[in-house]
Amino acid sequence: MIGSRAPATLRSDSSRDGPIRRSHLAIVGDPPRYPDVPTDGELRLFACGRFAFELGGALPEVTLAYRTWGQLNAAGDNAVVVLHALTGDSLAAGPGGWWAPIIGPGAAVDTEQAFVVCVNVLGGCTGSSGPASIDPLTRRPYAMRFPLVSIGDMVNAQRLLLESLGVTRLVAIGGSIGGLQALEWATRHPDMVAAAVPIASTGALGPMGIAVHGELGRRAIMADPDWRGGEYQSEGTFPAAGLATARMAAMTTYHSRESMAMRFDRNPASRPDTYPAFGPTFDIEGYLHHHGDKLVRRFDANSYLYLTRAMDLYDVGRDEGEEKWLSQVTAPILMVGIRTDWLFPPDEIEALADRMAALGIDATYEEIDSPHGHDAFLKEWDQLDAILTPFLDRL
Amino acid sequence: MIGSRAPATLRSDSSRDGPIRRSHLAIVGDPPRYPDVPTDGELRLFACGRFAFELGGALPEVTLAYRTWGQLNAAGDNAVVVLHALTGDSLAAGPGGWWAPIIGPGAAVDTEQAFVVCVNVLGGCTGSSGPASIDPLTRRPYAMRFPLVSIGDMVNAQRLLLESLGVTRLVAIGGSIGGLQALEWATRHPDMVAAAVPIASTGALGPMGIAVHGELGRRAIMADPDWRGGEYQSEGTFPAAGLATARMAAMTTYHSRESMAMRFDRNPASRPDTYPAFGPTFDIEGYLHHHGDKLVRRFDANSYLYLTRAMDLYDVGRDEGEEKWLSQVTAPILMVGIRTDWLFPPDEIEALADRMAALGIDATYEEIDSPHGHDAFLKEWDQLDAILTPFLDRL
Repeated sequence: MIGSRAPATLRSDSSRDGPIRRSHLAIVGDPPRYPDVPTDGELRLFACGRFAFELGGALPEVTLAYRTWGQLNAAGDNAVVVLHALTGDSLAAGPGGWWAPIIGPGAAVDTEQAFVVCVNVLGGCTGSSGPASIDPLTRRPYAMRFPLVSIGDMVNAQRLLLESLGVTRLVAIGGSIGGLQALEWATRHPDMVAAAVPIASTGALGPMGIAVHGELGRRAIMADPDWRGGEYQSEGTFPAAGLATARMAAMTTYHSRESMAMRFDRNPASRPDTYPAFGPTFDIEGYLHHHGDKLVRRFDANSYLYLTRAMDLYDVGRDEGEEKWLSQVTAPILMVGIRTDWLFPPDEIEALADRMAALGIDATYEEIDSPHGHDAFLKEWDQLDAILTPFLDRL
Repeated sequence: MIGSRAPATLRSDSSRDGPIRRSHLAIVGDPPRYPDVPTDGELRLFACGRFAFELGGALPEVTLAYRTWGQLNAAGDNAVVVLHALTGDSLAAGPGGWWAPIIGPGAAVDTEQAFVVCVNVLGGCTGSSGPASIDPLTRRPYAMRFPLVSIGDMVNAQRLLLESLGVTRLVAIGGSIGGLQALEWATRHPDMVAAAVPIASTGALGPMGIAVHGELGRRAIMADPDWRGGEYQSEGTFPAAGLATARMAAMTTYHSRESMAMRFDRNPASRPDTYPAFGPTFDIEGYLHHHGDKLVRRFDANSYLYLTRAMDLYDVGRDEGEEKWLSQVTAPILMVGIRTDWLFPPDEIEALADRMAALGIDATYEEIDSPHGHDAFLKEWDQLDAILTPFLDRL
């Protein structure tokens, strides 16, 4: 999903409709509580120490890679945790950032006001501990011996980092698997959550999403002989074909029938076919192959298994039921759906917001009217800005 | 799709709402034109002779396997050609037949009135020539040297068979890839077509269908090292993992979000996981794996490539545009959509029927109101009967 970046055009203050919400002077006069907290967006590492996983297993050490922008205030309560998508990473803001138009000075997530943190998820492959990490006991990658990772684990690890940085209160915002984490923050960590904005995510992925986004891809990876039961790193192989097929399947769920008709229709491919003797191919096929091949160059196959599994397994109502956990929420919640999203359909998101509101939670639903399907939260900058700004303003 | 058969409960005459449409006496007094034409539903073979393929290439001989039920009348004009789905075959009627509730004495397709023919498609693997057939020149399977097969080729070959049987006029009925063939009959062979009923099919598959139903599966098969560039038969392997993954992808398009929620929701799997250490799995996953593995035992991987490609390549307006070809239609057309079908969405089918009607064609649209998605044409017997019977009655 990172592949579909729009130009990172930060909106200047002068282009905003309303007044600037908070004076810069407040920050100048309000020195950061932890002057050594990084504010430059550089990738840094944090050692969580021993970590027990929700679904079983523990590791003596897990590491998180993260970036921050803006300054934490003295109370430690101006943090915004931005939660990345499945194959995304902590480079959320600044040049090349996947949410650059949303995060920055004067933007919806205003780095002149907020201390913005983005953490590479636990189980991923971009600096935080995951199946590709080296097990210090064996000096080989954990591979499938890495404990099963849950959305709860990802958030628990983030909390360890945030507390170490001095954060006391935060707004959690994210899309897709990031939205699941935002909901997890709101329901399991209400003591720290000032607000949450789960975008393009429900309380649990439905069977169509599990099938097309999750299991098809895992099956393709695990069926690749170069996967080697997950030991490909040790054995000098890589399940490139399997991971590429997995990405192709997932990419279909990030688009919509409408966006595909607009962009690809039945146009012929501009790239050569995988099997040239087998007739002409379509543009949509070339696009999927391109994205499949591209992911192989930047993502670990076992991480892909772990993260999609975490996404499938997430259920906000696990253990004691949805009502019990939604009732823990004390912060305002903004649920955002996308009209053409078939991975996390908007009617399911709206229904969840309604169930929250029925429990007395300050929950609202907003919908992005976009043909672009699930990926619209990485494309529809103006609508995102119009939805996020008033909500964050009133905090 | 064959996997989802309902019990073959033929409706008796006494259960019908209206009168029996035609007297048996007419057939008794009207001896078949070709007394040797089989009527028993047994599988028979027909040699087409030299066959030139629409997209290039020719073979000195192609064979069709087919079954027939009922008797052809003296005029040869009471034929109904029933066109099977992607991995289906000619066993349409009788015990185990995939459309048994629809075809039989007194049924919507009444074998006491009609001469019913079902032909295994060219390019398939159940008796008709396809990539698994032996090339007489090399005594090895054609594999990927078999010419690319089109929907037009399938119908051209059927016409050779039907003419040899003495058929002069026919009704073409089919769902999915069978519906594409029905449309091809109506537009390219109007001289023989008395009526056509394309079900759950449009004039051309859209990019979402090409992606999820077609290319994902082809990619998985071709990426399987046991595919061997298509030479697996000669090399003693079989791309089982690839074909199973392909089937899993396609199965998602035969269901709908609604049917999956009804049947699977997020229920745990009743079957063991592919990779047991990797956490619990969901019922939808077990279902997909089951159907993936099942297809491997009955279907040829190269045929799967050829038939899905034929489906993707089909475009009723190819060569000279849709209007030119629709204008060839002289017969009444009944287009049937399914409310929850996302492979061939009902609004696209209705729009095609509207474009036909605008050209002066006797085209109508009926919709099956079913949660079962694309596969509803193999499940919703009562609705199919209610839609087909009045249309066939008025012929």
